[in-house]
Amino acid sequence: MLIRSVTQQESLDFLTRTALGRLACEHRGQPYIVPILFACDGNCMYAFSTLGKKIIYMRSNPKVCIEVEELVTRHDWITVVINGRFEELTDTVEYKDLRVYAHNLLRKNPLWWEPSYVKTVLEGAERPIEETTYFRIHIDQVSGHRGIPDSAASHRPLVKAHHRGWLQKLLGRQIHH
Amino acid sequence: MLIRSVTQQESLDFLTRTALGRLACEHRGQPYIVPILFACDGNCMYAFSTLGKKIIYMRSNPKVCIEVEELVTRHDWITVVINGRFEELTDTVEYKDLRVYAHNLLRKNPLWWEPSYVKTVLEGAERPIEETTYFRIHIDQVSGHRGIPDSAASHRPLVKAHHRGWLQKLLGRQIHH
Repeated sequence: MLIRSVTQQESLDFLTRTALGRLACEHRGQPYIVPILFACDGNCMYAFSTLGKKIIYMRSNPKVCIEVEELVTRHDWITVVINGRFEELTDTVEYKDLRVYAHNLLRKNPLWWEPSYVKTVLEGAERPIEETTYFRIHIDQVSGHRGIPDSAASHRPLVKAHHRGWLQKLLGRQIHH
Repeated sequence: MLIRSVTQQESLDFLTRTALGRLACEHRGQPYIVPILFACDGNCMYAFSTLGKKIIYMRSNPKVCIEVEELVTRHDWITVVINGRFEELTDTVEYKDLRVYAHNLLRKNPLWWEPSYVKTVLEGAERPIEETTYFRIHIDQVSGHRGIPDSAASHRPLVKAHHRGWLQKLLGRQIHH
């Protein structure tokens, strides 16, 4: 396997054709990750959530990181990492058009609303239905990497010799002696 | 689909039989996520990495969050979230036994070392081989949720009526009027 960086345009193209990622936010130095369903228009990632920890954290610090990946095999994959800023699409006149836009983008995925609306049973009791929030993440920075299987890479023997040699050296030096 | 919380023991059992997660750390309020291969012994998660952004961030702030999931289908899944603390297993006498322990735990996954050692080509040039680091994450807090398909849930009609009703109400109120 080779690992190559992916251009910004390839990363954005990938984001517009996928829907599941993981969002990290933080509060007072404590990071937090959650899976997220989103729709991307090439500039922003739109999403929808009940009011929970991630919304509370992002209201307090809008800086987030989102990671999106597609694993075909362990040697054939793409992973894209976005640094972005949270903007809440509040239920106000000012945001009306943007909420409709977000909704239309998100509804292309028939299951986008499900994780927020299924019945959640916590410790034997149902969770009360909570306030819901639309938001978008402005994409400030995007980078991506792709794993390329040996069969598609041009320097196969070199790659294998290279990392195996390093592994042996490393383990020999650091572990067994 | 129903969503249920998972006990601490179930979450830890899941972590000991899986190996791929996403780690979030932060630096000056900017979160960062990367995929991570780990081995868990029930108390700590052990991993191995070249020196990069995540190690630099975790040295500066050891608080991390790790998310691990298993998606069977969109309605049958488990996701576990860990709050933990980074501890570097430095190449010193003090950490010798722990490094051997980490190595033995990690080597059960035959590909654990690969992402750090394959040839990486960035902008046409090879990335230099960097310093390598073993570390562990102390599990301070763990929580998990499981999605249960309707066929396995006991209140199927109630669940469906419940979330569909709420979806219609929400969309009717917030989007179309």
